[in-house]
Amino acid sequence: MALMDRYTAQLAELDIARMFGNDFFLTWDKTDDELAALFTVADALRTLRENNLSSRIFDSGLGISLFRDNSTRTRFSFASACNLLGLEVQDLDEGKSQIAHGETVRETANMISFMADVIGIRDDMYIGKGHTYQKAVSDAVRQGYADGVLEQVPTLVNLQCDIDHPTQCCADLLHVIHEFGGAQNLRGKKIAMTWAYSPSYGKPLSVPQGVIGLFSRFGMEVVLAHPEGYDIFPEVEELAARQAAASGGSFRRVDSMDEAFAGADIVYPKSWAPFAAMEKRTELYGNGDTAGIQALEKELLAQNADHTDWECTEERMASTKNGSALYLHCLPADISGVSCERGEVAASVFDRYRTPLYKQASYKPYIIAAMIFLAKVKDPVRMLELLERKGRVRQMG
Amino acid sequence: MALMDRYTAQLAELDIARMFGNDFFLTWDKTDDELAALFTVADALRTLRENNLSSRIFDSGLGISLFRDNSTRTRFSFASACNLLGLEVQDLDEGKSQIAHGETVRETANMISFMADVIGIRDDMYIGKGHTYQKAVSDAVRQGYADGVLEQVPTLVNLQCDIDHPTQCCADLLHVIHEFGGAQNLRGKKIAMTWAYSPSYGKPLSVPQGVIGLFSRFGMEVVLAHPEGYDIFPEVEELAARQAAASGGSFRRVDSMDEAFAGADIVYPKSWAPFAAMEKRTELYGNGDTAGIQALEKELLAQNADHTDWECTEERMASTKNGSALYLHCLPADISGVSCERGEVAASVFDRYRTPLYKQASYKPYIIAAMIFLAKVKDPVRMLELLERKGRVRQMG
Amino acid sequence: MALMDRYTAQLAELDIARMFGNDFFLTWDKTDDELAALFTVADALRTLRENNLSSRIFDSGLGISLFRDNSTRTRFSFASACNLLGLEVQDLDEGKSQIAHGETVRETANMISFMADVIGIRDDMYIGKGHTYQKAVSDAVRQGYADGVLEQVPTLVNLQCDIDHPTQCCADLLHVIHEFGGAQNLRGKKIAMTWAYSPSYGKPLSVPQGVIGLFSRFGMEVVLAHPEGYDIFPEVEELAARQAAASGGSFRRVDSMDEAFAGADIVYPKSWAPFAAMEKRTELYGNGDTAGIQALEKELLAQNADHTDWECTEERMASTKNGSALYLHCLPADISGVSCERGEVAASVFDRYRTPLYKQASYKPYIIAAMIFLAKVKDPVRMLELLERKGRVRQMG
Repeated sequence: MALMDRYTAQLAELDIARMFGNDFFLTWDKTDDELAALFTVADALRTLRENNLSSRIFDSGLGISLFRDNSTRTRFSFASACNLLGLEVQDLDEGKSQIAHGETVRETANMISFMADVIGIRDDMYIGKGHTYQKAVSDAVRQGYADGVLEQVPTLVNLQCDIDHPTQCCADLLHVIHEFGGAQNLRGKKIAMTWAYSPSYGKPLSVPQGVIGLFSRFGMEVVLAHPEGYDIFPEVEELAARQAAASGGSFRRVDSMDEAFAGADIVYPKSWAPFAAMEKRTELYGNGDTAGIQALEKELLAQNADHTDWECTEERMASTKNGSALYLHCLPADISGVSCERGEVAASVFDRYRTPLYKQASYKPYIIAAMIFLAKVKDPVRMLELLERKGRVRQMG
Repeated sequence: MALMDRYTAQLAELDIARMFGNDFFLTWDKTDDELAALFTVADALRTLRENNLSSRIFDSGLGISLFRDNSTRTRFSFASACNLLGLEVQDLDEGKSQIAHGETVRETANMISFMADVIGIRDDMYIGKGHTYQKAVSDAVRQGYADGVLEQVPTLVNLQCDIDHPTQCCADLLHVIHEFGGAQNLRGKKIAMTWAYSPSYGKPLSVPQGVIGLFSRFGMEVVLAHPEGYDIFPEVEELAARQAAASGGSFRRVDSMDEAFAGADIVYPKSWAPFAAMEKRTELYGNGDTAGIQALEKELLAQNADHTDWECTEERMASTKNGSALYLHCLPADISGVSCERGEVAASVFDRYRTPLYKQASYKPYIIAAMIFLAKVKDPVRMLELLERKGRVRQMG
Repeated sequence: MALMDRYTAQLAELDIARMFGNDFFLTWDKTDDELAALFTVADALRTLRENNLSSRIFDSGLGISLFRDNSTRTRFSFASACNLLGLEVQDLDEGKSQIAHGETVRETANMISFMADVIGIRDDMYIGKGHTYQKAVSDAVRQGYADGVLEQVPTLVNLQCDIDHPTQCCADLLHVIHEFGGAQNLRGKKIAMTWAYSPSYGKPLSVPQGVIGLFSRFGMEVVLAHPEGYDIFPEVEELAARQAAASGGSFRRVDSMDEAFAGADIVYPKSWAPFAAMEKRTELYGNGDTAGIQALEKELLAQNADHTDWECTEERMASTKNGSALYLHCLPADISGVSCERGEVAASVFDRYRTPLYKQASYKPYIIAAMIFLAKVKDPVRMLELLERKGRVRQMG
C-alpha cells in the first residue's frame, strides 16, 4: 500500500474546496472538515519527510515573516515549513514606527509581496490590533493582485494575534489526537485550560483563547480556570460555549485550579495577563504613556503575586484522571526552582512530561506547512499522490 | 507561438556581448542596446513567472547584500530577484567602523565572495563615497578571481549609490515604457523631474540624477526643476544635456515647479538634499563632527521650510498634458495630511495614482534579475528558449 | 578519467565508517584517516564546483547557525557550505540571557532542530564554556532523536569554541598541504605558531591551540612561542607533545619570536590573550563583575604593551627558511601602520602574502561542507561518483 493512501482516503471525504487561495486567521473561521484536512495534511507531510521524500511544491518563491514580538519556536517553525515546501524565508524587520496608519500597511504589504507566496505575521501585544493588522495586510495584497500589481496572492498565516494562536493550538490538538488515538476519542474527555502563576508580566491571551476556541469543537468537557480579574475576551468564551454545546460537550469557567484539574484528561496550566489590563496597556501605549505602562506593570506583578499558589504541582497532577493527565504547554514554561523561584509548574512535573512536550512542539512546522499547502494546492489528494510517486529524495546519502 | 519568441527576437537584434561578466554601476555605462536588452529580459522573466515557469539558472550559489542605509523595497526586490534565479541571499551586516580603508574593503570583498555569484550594495549617504566603494569591491573580487582566490567573479549590482540608482530608475523607465506602449513612443514626451517639499532631511540625490541620466536618452523633453540651492551633481546635468541633444530631445533646468509641470506627460516630484549640503555633510562626517552635522541638519530643515509650496497638488496636476500626466515616485512618498502635515504630494493625487505607483515598484525585482541574468548568461536568447522548453513549473499545485 | 577518480581512490583506502552520523568538535577527536578523508572530500567538492557540477545532496533542510561572538568569515563560510549542499541557513539570534542553565539548552536545542540537518556554533569567549555548551546541544538533540521528538539528528559543527577552531585550522592545513604538494611533504618541516602584539584585548586561544593540536600530527617540528604569561591550555600543549612524538616530529615551547622564526618553513604570528586572564575573565563574567572586567582589560592591554616588539617584521621573515616561509593568518590581521599603529605584522610582509592568505581562507567553506558531507553521507565514495555522473550543473549559462 502506498504511504499516502490513508491520508488521501481521509481527504477525499472532506469538503475543503474553500481552503484553496484562502488565509488562516482563526481556527473558528474554518469548518470541521477544513480542520480535519489540516491535521491530515500535516501528518501526511510528516510521513513524507520521515520517509525521506521531498514535499517541495515550490521551485522558487518567498515566505515573508514579520515578528512584532520575540519568537524562537514559531520563527523556526515557520522557516522550517517554508523550507519544506521550497520557499525561502525573508524576514521583514520593521521599525515599529513605520506602520502608523492603514495607508502604509497597504503600501508595505504590496512592496514586500511581488514574489511572496506566503506572509506569516506575529502581532499579539495589543488588544484589537494584531488581527486587524493581519486582515489589513491580507486585504492589501488581494487588492494588489486584483489591480495587477502582484502576480500571486500571498497566503496570510496568523503566527499569533491578539485573538488566536492557531499554529500553536492546532499543533497542540494534533499532539492530543495522536496521544488519544484519534479525534473521535476526545469525546467526553475533560481539558483544563487554566491560568498559572508566573513572575512575568503581560503574556498574551491568544493561547488560552485559542485553546478553548478549538478544543470546544470536539465534544469535550472544556474547563477554563483563572483567578478573579484574569478574564479573557468574552466573545471567545461565548464562542466556546456555543461550540461545546453544538458538539455535544460542555464549557464552563471556574475560579479554582483544583476544580479544573480534578479528573481532567488534559491540563494546560499557563500564565496570561488580564484582558482588562491588556486593554488598558493598549490605550496607554497608544498615548505613548510610558510612566503609565510602568505603573500598570507594577500593579499587574503585584496582582500576580496574590496567586502564587496557582501552580501545576504534583498534588494537583495526582488529582487528574488516573493521576496521569496529559500535561500541555506552549513553551517555554516558567518552572519552579529552575527558571524562576516559583512558576507555572513544579520541576518534577515538567521533567516527567518533557518528551511529550517536545513532541507537542514538533507538530508546529507541519501544521504551518499544511496551512500553506492547503491554501496553495488546488487538489491536495492528487498532489500528495504525486509527491509520493515522483519519489524525489529529501536527502541523498 | 512560443512565449519567449517576441523577447528572443528583440534580443537577437542587439549587441550585448559586453554585458556578460560585467557589473551594473550606472545606466550611462551601458549602451542603448544594453539597456534595451535589460528591459527585454526583465519582461521575459516576468512572462515566465506569470506562466508559472521557473527561471532558476542557479542550482546553488549566494547573492550577497550590503545595505549601508535602511531599505525595505530594494532589499525585498534584491531578495526576490536572487530567489527567482536560484540564489540564496546572505546579508552582510557590517559595523560601519570595519570599513575604514581600502585595505579592508579588498579583504572583506574576498572573504564574503568564495561562493558569491552576485553582490548588491546600497551606499548612498556620502558624496564621493558610494560609487567609489562599489568600484573598489568590484576591483577586489576581480583581482581575487585573477589570483585564483575566487572561483567565480561575483557580479556587482548597484542598489543605489551617491551618483545613480539604476535599479530604481530602470524600473521607473520600464513602467513608463509599458504605460506609453513602447520606448519609441517616448520621443517628444515631456518629463518633469522636480524637487518637492518634505519635512525630512538629507534624501539622496541618486534618484533625480538617475532619472535625468536615463530618461534623457530617449528623445524626451527632460525638465529638471528645483528651488535655488538644491543643485544636483553638475556632471550629471551635463551628461543629461549631451544625451538629450544626441537623442533628439532636450534638457533644461528651471526653478519653477509650475513651469516643469505645464504640459508634462510624466511628473516625478520628489524631495532631495542640496548637493552642496551633502558635500558639507560628507566632510563633517569624515571629521566626526556630530555637532556640525546637527547644525547642518537644522539649517537644511529651515531651508526646506521656505519651499513648502513645492507640492504636487491637484492644481499642478491639472496643468499637465490633458490633466493626466503619469505621476511617478520611488516610494515611500511624503503625503500631505497622511504621513506628514505638508509633504511632496497631495493625498488625493497620491490616491488616484496608487495602482500605477505600485506597478512601477513591481518592476524592480525583474530589473535586478535581468541585470544578474545578463551578467551571468553568455547566450541569453538560447537560455530564455531553454527555460521555456524545459518548462519546469515554479509552483506545483 | 573521471574528475572524482583521484578522490574516490584516496577515500577508498581510509577507515572512515565512524564519521557517519557524528559531530565535529575537536580535530583530535578524529583519527588520521578521518582527517585525510576531510581534506580529500573538501578538495573533491571544490573540484565539482570548479567544474560547474552541483554538490546538492539536500533537496530541502536547514543549517542552523549560532554565533555567540561576531563573525564575518566563518558566518559566510558556514552559509556557503550549507548552500553548496542544498541547506538553507537559519540564524539563531539569541539574547545571551536566554541560555542560563542546562535545562534551557536542552529545550532550545530541540525547538530549533525539528528540520535541522546541521547546527554550527561559535562560542569562544569564556574558558570552560564553549565546548561544554556544544556538547550539551549535541547531547540534547541526540536525546530528542532517541525520544522520537526529532526525525533526524542534526550534525554539530564546532565553528570555534574555547578549546579548538577546527574549521579554521583544517582550512589552514589544507592550504599548507596544497602549498607543499601533499601532507607527506610536511614531515620535518618547521612551523612557528607564535604570539604577536596587537593593541586589542582578549583574542581567543582556539587558534594557537587548534594549530598545535593539529599540525603536531604530521611529523613536523612544531614550535610554540609567546612572552611569559601568555600560556595556552596546558592540556593542549601536552597533547601536541604526545602527538608530535608519535608522528616522528617534535613540539617545544620557547619565549622568543626570533628563535621560533629561525629557519621556519611556516610562520603563524597571531595575538591571543593569556589563559590565566581568560580564566579570570570567565570568573568575573560569571559574577557579573563589570568593574572587574574593565580593570582586567586595562591590565591586559598594559601587559600587551610590554611586547610590541613581537611583530612579524621583514627582518624576522628574512630569518626563515630561504627567507620565504609561508606566512599564515586566520584574518583579519592587525597590520602595522594600516589597521593600527603597531600590530601583529608589518604592512610589507602582509602585502606580499595577501594572495596566499586569501587562498588560505578560501578553503574554509569546503572544509565545513566536507564535515557535513562526511557526517551525512554513508558511502562518500559512491556519492561523489553519483554527483559527477548525474552531472547536474550548478549554474546554467
